[in-house]
Amino acid sequence: MSDEAAVLDAVAARRELIDDALVERLPIEEPERLYHASRHLIDAGGKRLRPAVTLLVAEALTGIEPPNADYHAVPTLDGADTGSVGIGASESTGTGETIDVMAAAASIEAIQSFTLIHDDIMDADDLRRGVPAVHQAYDPETAILAGDTLYAKAFEFMLEADARPERTVEALSELARTCTLICEGQSLDVAFEGRDDVTTDEYIHMVEQKTAVLYAAAARAPAVLLGADDATADALYQFGLDVGRAFQIRDDVLDLTVPSEELGKQRGSDLVEGKRTAVTLHARQQGVNVEGLIDTDDLETVDDAAIDAAVARLDDAGSIEYARTLSRDLVDRGKERLDVLPDSTARDHLRELAEYLVERGY
Amino acid sequence: MSDEAAVLDAVAARRELIDDALVERLPIEEPERLYHASRHLIDAGGKRLRPAVTLLVAEALTGIEPPNADYHAVPTLDGADTGSVGIGASESTGTGETIDVMAAAASIEAIQSFTLIHDDIMDADDLRRGVPAVHQAYDPETAILAGDTLYAKAFEFMLEADARPERTVEALSELARTCTLICEGQSLDVAFEGRDDVTTDEYIHMVEQKTAVLYAAAARAPAVLLGADDATADALYQFGLDVGRAFQIRDDVLDLTVPSEELGKQRGSDLVEGKRTAVTLHARQQGVNVEGLIDTDDLETVDDAAIDAAVARLDDAGSIEYARTLSRDLVDRGKERLDVLPDSTARDHLRELAEYLVERGY
Repeated sequence: MSDEAAVLDAVAARRELIDDALVERLPIEEPERLYHASRHLIDAGGKRLRPAVTLLVAEALTGIEPPNADYHAVPTLDGADTGSVGIGASESTGTGETIDVMAAAASIEAIQSFTLIHDDIMDADDLRRGVPAVHQAYDPETAILAGDTLYAKAFEFMLEADARPERTVEALSELARTCTLICEGQSLDVAFEGRDDVTTDEYIHMVEQKTAVLYAAAARAPAVLLGADDATADALYQFGLDVGRAFQIRDDVLDLTVPSEELGKQRGSDLVEGKRTAVTLHARQQGVNVEGLIDTDDLETVDDAAIDAAVARLDDAGSIEYARTLSRDLVDRGKERLDVLPDSTARDHLRELAEYLVERGY
Repeated sequence: MSDEAAVLDAVAARRELIDDALVERLPIEEPERLYHASRHLIDAGGKRLRPAVTLLVAEALTGIEPPNADYHAVPTLDGADTGSVGIGASESTGTGETIDVMAAAASIEAIQSFTLIHDDIMDADDLRRGVPAVHQAYDPETAILAGDTLYAKAFEFMLEADARPERTVEALSELARTCTLICEGQSLDVAFEGRDDVTTDEYIHMVEQKTAVLYAAAARAPAVLLGADDATADALYQFGLDVGRAFQIRDDVLDLTVPSEELGKQRGSDLVEGKRTAVTLHARQQGVNVEGLIDTDDLETVDDAAIDAAVARLDDAGSIEYARTLSRDLVDRGKERLDVLPDSTARDHLRELAEYLVERGY
C-alpha cells in the first residue's frame, strides 16, 4: 500500500481537484433521485486515473504546473500565432485562447462512470468501489437512467471546455466514436463468455475497444483542444491505447490475486462468470481445462478455497506470469510514445502513472 | 385509417428515404448481435415523424423540394455571403456551403430509438411497434447496450451533417442537453407513479422534458446547421415543444382508446401501470378514484372488459375530452409558430403533420 501510495502521489492532488469539479458539475438537483444515483459511484471514490491523464497531458503540453495551474483556463498552444499572449489573455473565454481542461477531464470521468453503471447491470456485479453497485443501491431502472444521464453530461462537459469550434468538433467526434467502440467492446466481452475458441488476438482487440479507447481519448482530447499538431495527438492516443490495454490485462490478474475486501468485489469473479481473460486464454493454450477450474457460476456461493485452488492451477501453467509480462510490454511501449511531449515533470508523472498501472497491487 | 394515410402522404416519401439512410448508417457489422439489436426497432417500422420534421424544416428554409431535393447536400442559407452559389457549389463538402440534413434526421431518429429501447426496459413494456421490445427479442443486457450504441451513433450522425464547426457545436450542444432533459423527464415519469399529488403543471413539465424536447431539437437542428437566424431557430424549437407536448398528451388518450393490435402494445397499459397522464390527473380532479379503476398491475392478466369499464368512467368524467382539447390547443399554438418560415409546401406539410399529431387514430 505504501509503495502504491507513493506512486499515486503524482495524481493525488489532481484527484481532489477532479472530485471538486465533478461535484460542482453534477449538483443534486431535480429529479434528485436521478442525480443521487448518477453521483453514487463518483462519490464512492475511484482513482480518477483517466481524467488525471487528461490534466497531465495538458500540463506537459503547455508547461503549466501545480499548485498554480488553473485548469479552467489553460492557454492554448497557438497563443503566439493569434496575438493572445499577454496580460489578460488567460482570462478570455470563448475566443480559443484558453480552454477549460478540467471540463474535458470531467467529461472523460463521466463516460467512465456511465460505463461502470451499465456494465455492472449487464455483468450482474453487485459491488463496485466497495459500495453496492447503482442497480443495487437504487434499482436497475434508475441505474440505466443514471448512466444515460452521465452519458449526455459527458458531451455537455466536453463542450464546456470551450475550445475553438473546429477543435471541439474533433474532440466530440472522438468522444462519440469512443462510446461506440466501448459498446462494441462490451458486446464482444459478453459474446466471448459463450465461446471457447476465443483467440488472444480477439481478446486484445476486445480489450482495446472496451477499455483502452477511453484512456486514448483521455490522452488525446487535451492535445486536440489545445491545438497540438496531429502527430502529437496521435502519439498520445496510442499511449492511451497501450496503457489502457495494459491496465485491463493487469486487471485480469488482479481479479485473481487480490482479496475481495481490497478489490471492492468478489475475487475471481471473472473466473466464476466464465469470462475470457488474458490469463484464461493462455491457460487453455497450455492445456488447462479452464471451464473445470470452478464448478459454480454463482458469485454468492463460491468459496475462497475453490478460487485459491483455481488460481494455483493458473499460476502453475505460467498464465499469470504471461499476463503480467504482456501488460509490462505494453506499458513500456506506451511510455516511449511520450517522447512527443516536452521534457517535463508532467511527462514524468505520466510515465509513473503508466508504471503504476502494471505494478499496482489493486 | 384512410384519413390518416392521407395526412401521412406528406411524410411517406420522406420516410422511405429516412429508412434508407438509417439502414445505410447502421450496417450490420461486428459485433453483429449488437447491431441487429440496435436495428431491431428501426427495422420494425415507425412513422419517422421527428426526422420528417427535420427534413421539412430544411425544405421550408431553403426552398428545396422533392422529388429533386438532395437531402445529403442542402445549400446553407448564407451561400451568397460566402460566394458558394453557382455550379458545383452544391457538391462541396466540409466547407459549410452544403450540409447533409439527412444525417441530422438520422441523428434524431437514433435518439428516439435509443430512448424507446431503454424506456421499454424501465417500464417493462414487452411490445413495441407490434414486435417484441428489444429486451424481449434479445435480452435486457443487449438492450441496454443497443441503446447505448444508438446514443453514440446519434452524436456521430449529427457530426456527419458536416456543417460549419460553430453550427455543429451548437447542434451537438442542443443534442446533449436534449438527452439530459429526456433522462430527467423519464425519471420524473417513474417518480410520478409513486405519488398521488402530481399536479397538471408538473405533468406538462415532465412531458415537455420526456417527449417534447426531441421534437424541438428535430425542428431546431436543421435551422442551426443551415445558418438560420436565432429568432427562426427559437420559434422552430417552440413549435417542436408545442407539438411534442400535444403528441404525448394525445398518446395518453390513444393508450386508452385504440385496440391493442393497432397500438402495438396492451391498451390501457398506462392505467394498469399507474402512470399519471393528462387523462388521469383530470379525472382525479373530478373526484374519480383513479387507483381503483383497474384492480391489477399486471399487464399479462388484465382483461379488456376491465379496461373498457375504466375508460368509460374516464370518459364520463370528461377527462378524455379534456386531454383532447389540451393537445388541440397546443397544436394550434405550434402551427402559429411556423409563421417564421417562408410560405412553402413544406411549411404546409409541417402544419398538416402537427394536425395529424392530434387527430391521428393511433
